[in-house]
Amino acid sequence: MESSVRVKLLTFTPTPDDVVAAAARLCYSPSTAEDLVVEFREGKRQSGLFIRKLINSGHLSPLEHASFTFAVDGISRACSHQLVRHRIASYSQQSQRYVSMDEARYILPDSVKVDARALSIFKEAIRYAHEAYKSLVESGIPLEDARYLLPNAWETRIVVTMNARELHHFFSLRLCKRAQWEIRRLAKLMLTEVRGVAGGIFDIAGPSCITKGKCEEVNPCGEPYGSMEELLN
Amino acid sequence: MESSVRVKLLTFTPTPDDVVAAAARLCYSPSTAEDLVVEFREGKRQSGLFIRKLINSGHLSPLEHASFTFAVDGISRACSHQLVRHRIASYSQQSQRYVSMDEARYILPDSVKVDARALSIFKEAIRYAHEAYKSLVESGIPLEDARYLLPNAWETRIVVTMNARELHHFFSLRLCKRAQWEIRRLAKLMLTEVRGVAGGIFDIAGPSCITKGKCEEVNPCGEPYGSMEELLN
Amino acid sequence: MESSVRVKLLTFTPTPDDVVAAAARLCYSPSTAEDLVVEFREGKRQSGLFIRKLINSGHLSPLEHASFTFAVDGISRACSHQLVRHRIASYSQQSQRYVSMDEARYILPDSVKVDARALSIFKEAIRYAHEAYKSLVESGIPLEDARYLLPNAWETRIVVTMNARELHHFFSLRLCKRAQWEIRRLAKLMLTEVRGVAGGIFDIAGPSCITKGKCEEVNPCGEPYGSMEELLN
Amino acid sequence: MESSVRVKLLTFTPTPDDVVAAAARLCYSPSTAEDLVVEFREGKRQSGLFIRKLINSGHLSPLEHASFTFAVDGISRACSHQLVRHRIASYSQQSQRYVSMDEARYILPDSVKVDARALSIFKEAIRYAHEAYKSLVESGIPLEDARYLLPNAWETRIVVTMNARELHHFFSLRLCKRAQWEIRRLAKLMLTEVRGVAGGIFDIAGPSCITKGKCEEVNPCGEPYGSMEELLN
Repeated sequence: MESSVRVKLLTFTPTPDDVVAAAARLCYSPSTAEDLVVEFREGKRQSGLFIRKLINSGHLSPLEHASFTFAVDGISRACSHQLVRHRIASYSQQSQRYVSMDEARYILPDSVKVDARALSIFKEAIRYAHEAYKSLVESGIPLEDARYLLPNAWETRIVVTMNARELHHFFSLRLCKRAQWEIRRLAKLMLTEVRGVAGGIFDIAGPSCITKGKCEEVNPCGEPYGSMEELLN
Repeated sequence: MESSVRVKLLTFTPTPDDVVAAAARLCYSPSTAEDLVVEFREGKRQSGLFIRKLINSGHLSPLEHASFTFAVDGISRACSHQLVRHRIASYSQQSQRYVSMDEARYILPDSVKVDARALSIFKEAIRYAHEAYKSLVESGIPLEDARYLLPNAWETRIVVTMNARELHHFFSLRLCKRAQWEIRRLAKLMLTEVRGVAGGIFDIAGPSCITKGKCEEVNPCGEPYGSMEELLN
Repeated sequence: MESSVRVKLLTFTPTPDDVVAAAARLCYSPSTAEDLVVEFREGKRQSGLFIRKLINSGHLSPLEHASFTFAVDGISRACSHQLVRHRIASYSQQSQRYVSMDEARYILPDSVKVDARALSIFKEAIRYAHEAYKSLVESGIPLEDARYLLPNAWETRIVVTMNARELHHFFSLRLCKRAQWEIRRLAKLMLTEVRGVAGGIFDIAGPSCITKGKCEEVNPCGEPYGSMEELLN
Repeated sequence: MESSVRVKLLTFTPTPDDVVAAAARLCYSPSTAEDLVVEFREGKRQSGLFIRKLINSGHLSPLEHASFTFAVDGISRACSHQLVRHRIASYSQQSQRYVSMDEARYILPDSVKVDARALSIFKEAIRYAHEAYKSLVESGIPLEDARYLLPNAWETRIVVTMNARELHHFFSLRLCKRAQWEIRRLAKLMLTEVRGVAGGIFDIAGPSCITKGKCEEVNPCGEPYGSMEELLN
């Protein structure tokens, strides 16, 4: 069965914009951190503008005080292998060593989906691999060894926690049109989720065409994004 | 003026016990992370017992999904220098480069406080250093250079974010009786704060005399803690 | 074609034992770091005994000053996915997005190898997946999408750098009999390599049965190692 | 006694340019890592040009395979407090808790040195603080408490290990004219050292005026560097 990516923001640091802004202000202020949070929470100061200045000035460490935890389902093992290469983050992933894969759930690339012959080859190969996997399990081969036959396309589930600084870094790399389509799709859903709760921090995010107003890639894609709206559609 | 340490839990990942337990279960379960969080939040499963098993088995990575942010006031620069050596954490610290130190606020060690002669030497030295600092500032020396005269005892303020795994590591080192008194005092206040909101995760925490039931130090202090109550008093 | 793991120590910090010992001594000594390195290099002090004391006392941070870089070939993508979960390390991995997989090179689990029927199913499934992959590539499907059909067993190559502290942590987890066989095999080869050049640092390394003299696992394997010799054979 | 900063490259990954280049090439090549290192070492490929392309394209992770360890003497505790805020690095620092400070060794800011009155205030304050420290020690106050009186100017020693990626990040921040003078001076010496052994990796390094050809600071200093020569003089 074809799976598709689902992202749910499981939990996050409450009022992330205010926490980040207060921590940043502490560096230059004689006030206590607690008083500063209150000022932002009560609206005496606007965290949004303050955060934009922070980000523009490259003073990014205060962004680390806000964390976001996502439940991600319906991504391939190819995608999760890319994802976990981001080391300033925390992961809990469903294990193919312990969970039996009774049902064939896989990710189908668009390039395959639109090509009838390729689609048929793809589905047949998935089916074949799954049958072989099940045969091995039935013969008594341990799950952890039978899974050597499961393809990269196989669905996985993972809980991911990143702080806002690392998320910005992640979005700058993985929302670029030169990133692979599957992790781009995941990153877009993650960005949409965090913009709903941290509109100041993630007002502007993504590749350099968005954040710097011009592409900084050595081999540009040639079709830079013009706006956040375009990026998120 | 003598300062003393104040710790305020500014913010944290809501329902930390449930988030950690759900992430951990995902690794071995065919359910989605979202469903697992709901099961724990609704009390269908008990996160407390589950987390204790996790920690005992050394499967610590799920603890990283819960973060805690503290406002810390009234610690010395000696103490903050030790604190920031913990690298899996985020810090925003009041800068002596930008904030003028008009008032003398300092940390006074107990060993000095109980010794009248030492106390007098200490206070006089603080006063002298502060006067010299102010003279330099008045002569036009930049704040960032005048502060070279400020002593280690000088008060600083810092916002600290650590996840629950790093907090356990921090508590194991810094609540040991062989740690320095100032950072022990800080760690104790931090532990008290997080136990109030994450009783499962921090039910047991501290040096090996508490967590392992026996001292693992090469040079033991000889007076191991007998219980969490004793540690927290 | 069946592949098997090959590990080559590409490069490392020269005289790692002496560097670690000198850095550790600096903390408690009025000498300069440079003089301390010379003392160890010239044999005036013995780094071996000194390092053993360090490790026993849990003062592990000086171990970070020595780094080791391995070229690893012949591991499966299942194994590399586990490997890169170790975040305090650096990786450069051959990309299935850019390198065409013209030849079928895969890792074969022992449990399959010893079972004629399973072996036949396994090999046939590998062959089928590779044929499907090649058909997709010939139809013009991009490499990065065709690889969704490649199985976990597929061979990958990776350059890994870890410092000595992280290596000790890696060995403690991955040389335990409860770790998966493939990463255990990899870890054993890595340990053999580093013992050849850093005999002091890695004199004792591995799971708790070796380093603590008793198993600390919640679910012990029941067959603890008795000695480093047994572990390395 | 006035101290001044001394930096000695204690050790480093041998042939760092070749190792980095080979690791980077592995990602896109069907060769083994070992063969690639040989090609670069034997000069069949030029690592210098290759590394410049890497850095320009923002593909920075291969830089992590080369590490550099510095012995740093003659910096103030103010400076070491800034230094250790770089978390992707390893430190071993001389401890004021264990090493008695019998001699007054301190860092003197230039702004003070050129102002006779300020200089006299400064030196007198250092002397006063040291006398008070020694009085406390003589009265039986523990070293770890007596040091609360030592000023930020006090000399410290530290062993620092950073990989080439983090060094580039460090240089981009700390060689900017807006960074504090003491850590700039330290960074310049560190850069000079690594350029001697890793000319490819550190051919271009420093703030954005050097690496990007234009200042990216929000509040520019107004006097951007024109060349590496100017930066290093």
